[in-house]
Amino acid sequence: MKHFIGIDMGGTNIKTGIVDLSAGEVVHASVTPTLGRLGHEAVMGRIADQILETIQEGGFSTADIGGVGVGVPGVLDLDQGLVLFLPNLPGNWRNVALRRTLEAKTGLPAALLNDARAITYGEWKFGAGKGVDTIACFTLGTGIGGGLVIEGRLHLGIGGTGGELGHQCIDPNGPQCGCGGRGCLESLVSGPAIAALGVRAVLQGRTTSLGSLAGADLNNITPELIWQAARQGDPVANEIYELVGDYLGVAVSNILVTVGPRKVILAGGVAGAGDLLLNPIRRRIRLQVFMMPADQVEVVIASLGANAGILGVAAWAAQKLAK
Amino acid sequence: MKHFIGIDMGGTNIKTGIVDLSAGEVVHASVTPTLGRLGHEAVMGRIADQILETIQEGGFSTADIGGVGVGVPGVLDLDQGLVLFLPNLPGNWRNVALRRTLEAKTGLPAALLNDARAITYGEWKFGAGKGVDTIACFTLGTGIGGGLVIEGRLHLGIGGTGGELGHQCIDPNGPQCGCGGRGCLESLVSGPAIAALGVRAVLQGRTTSLGSLAGADLNNITPELIWQAARQGDPVANEIYELVGDYLGVAVSNILVTVGPRKVILAGGVAGAGDLLLNPIRRRIRLQVFMMPADQVEVVIASLGANAGILGVAAWAAQKLAK
Repeated sequence: MKHFIGIDMGGTNIKTGIVDLSAGEVVHASVTPTLGRLGHEAVMGRIADQILETIQEGGFSTADIGGVGVGVPGVLDLDQGLVLFLPNLPGNWRNVALRRTLEAKTGLPAALLNDARAITYGEWKFGAGKGVDTIACFTLGTGIGGGLVIEGRLHLGIGGTGGELGHQCIDPNGPQCGCGGRGCLESLVSGPAIAALGVRAVLQGRTTSLGSLAGADLNNITPELIWQAARQGDPVANEIYELVGDYLGVAVSNILVTVGPRKVILAGGVAGAGDLLLNPIRRRIRLQVFMMPADQVEVVIASLGANAGILGVAAWAAQKLAK
Repeated sequence: MKHFIGIDMGGTNIKTGIVDLSAGEVVHASVTPTLGRLGHEAVMGRIADQILETIQEGGFSTADIGGVGVGVPGVLDLDQGLVLFLPNLPGNWRNVALRRTLEAKTGLPAALLNDARAITYGEWKFGAGKGVDTIACFTLGTGIGGGLVIEGRLHLGIGGTGGELGHQCIDPNGPQCGCGGRGCLESLVSGPAIAALGVRAVLQGRTTSLGSLAGADLNNITPELIWQAARQGDPVANEIYELVGDYLGVAVSNILVTVGPRKVILAGGVAGAGDLLLNPIRRRIRLQVFMMPADQVEVVIASLGANAGILGVAAWAAQKLAK
C-alpha cells in the first residue's frame, strides 16, 4: 500500500507528514512557516515545494505516494476543491483553487478537508473514536472547530461545511464571534476567550495567583497557565474552567439531543485542561439532557495529540482518491 | 404491494390510517380519544382494537396489511420496541413493551418511531423534503420535536432519540423546559410558550387587539389568535412572532452549521404562522451563519398537513419490516 501525505495548514506553520496508513503513523515530517502575508499564491507554492522536499528528505519518490490530503482552517468547497473563506489567515483566500494548484505543481492527486474534520477523522480512524459508529469531535484551540462521523461516515454537509460545532450559538446575547455571528461557542471558549477571562480577573484585582504566575505580564496569561493555577487550587482559575466547561457542556448537550453520538471527543490544545473541562461538561449534561440516554455517551479527551490532523487528512485522501 | 397502517398517538387522540404507500395516501382513517389516564395497558388495548376495527371498516382484512407503524410522542428504545418516557401523556409509560404488545394483540408486525421523526420521514418521502438528500424538520406544536434525514437515511442516533431539535438549549439562562432541562427551544417557542407571551401582553395592559379578539378570556389566546392579530397589523402580536421566529432562527442556524441540510422544514400547527416565522428565521440566519453557505439552504413550511405523521410512520414500518 502506498503512503499518503497529510498537511496541517495552520496560521503560523505548515506541517507536512508522510503517513503509513496501515500502521497509522507519521513516518517522516517537516514544518515550515506559513507566511500568509505573502498572499495565497506564494503560500500554495510553499506548500507544493514542501511536499516535494519532504518526500525526498524522507527517502521516498513521488511514485511511492498515493496522494496528498490538505487540512485547511476554513470554509471549503470540497467538490470543486476550492478555499472559500479562511477566517484566521491573511492572503485573500477567496475562491482559491487550492486542490488544482497543488496537483499541477506536484503531479500528485490531492484532496482538501477542513482541518477540524481532519482531526475528527484521524481520531475516528486511529484514536479515541476508533471502532465507534457515531462520534462528535470538538477541536479546542485559537478557534473552535468540530466534526461528526455518522454511522461510519465522516459527515460533510454542504461542500464539507457540516460539523462546525464551534459555531453553534450558545448565547444569543453573547459576544461577537470572529465568524461574524453572535454568541457562538467559539466566542465563549476559544483559547483567546479563556485567556481574556484570566486577564480580566487580574485587572479586576481578584485574589488569584494568575498575576504572579504570569510574572505580572498579562501577555503570559494563557489557557495553560490558567489550568496550572486551577490544579494548584486557585479558586479564580477553577471558576474560569467551570464557566468554560459549562458553555462547552451546553454545546455538547445540543449535539447529544440532535445527533446522538456514542462518543464525544475533545481535541486541540485547550483539551489539555482535561478533567477541569470534563467535569463541568458532564455536570451540564446531567442537568440538560433528558430526551436521550446520555448515560450511554462517553465524553473523553482525544488520544492522538498534534498528529491527529495529518493522520486524518492522509487517511481521508486515501479513501477519497481511491474512488 | 400491501397497505401499511400508520398511527399517530397523541395526548388527546389516537389517529389510525390505512396507507397506500405507492400513492402516498391515507385511504381510510379513524380517530379515538387516547384516555391516557386509564393507564398504559388500557391505552395499548385501545390502540390494538382500533387497528383491527379500522382494517374492517376500511373493507380490508389483516392479510392485506403489511404491518403497523406507531408514531409515539416521546423517548423510545427502537431496538427493543420500548417506550421509555412520554413527557406529555399520563399512564406510567416507563419501559413499556409497546411493540410486542401490539404485535401480540393484532397479529401484525409493528415498528415504533418517535412522532416527530415520523413527520420528518413523511415530509421527506412524500412532502416538502421529497428528493432532497439531507433535511432537518422542526415540528412546532404543544411540544417542539424534530428529525433529520442525512444522506437519504432517517437519522436515528441512539435508539431513535437523534433529531430532538426542540431540546437544543437556546438560552442557558432561559426558562425551565418540560423535559427537565433549561432554555430548550421548546421552552421558548412551544404553542403554550407563544400563548403565554400573548397573555402576558394583555395582562401588562399593552396596546393590542389580543384581549378583545379573545373576548376578554385569556383562555382564548392561542398561537393562531396571535398570528391572526399579527396579520391584521397588531404590533404586539407581530413582536411576539418576531421574538419566537428569532429563537427558532437560532435553532435553525445551529443545525445549519452542525449538520448542513439542504432544506429545513417547519411542520406542526404553529407552522401555520408561515411568513411570520420564516421572515425572522431567515433574518437570524443572515446575522448568524457564516461558516457554511446558508444561501444554499431553503427554509420552508411543510406540505403534508396533519397526515404527515401517519404517512411517515407507515412508510417507516414498510421499510423497517422489509428487512
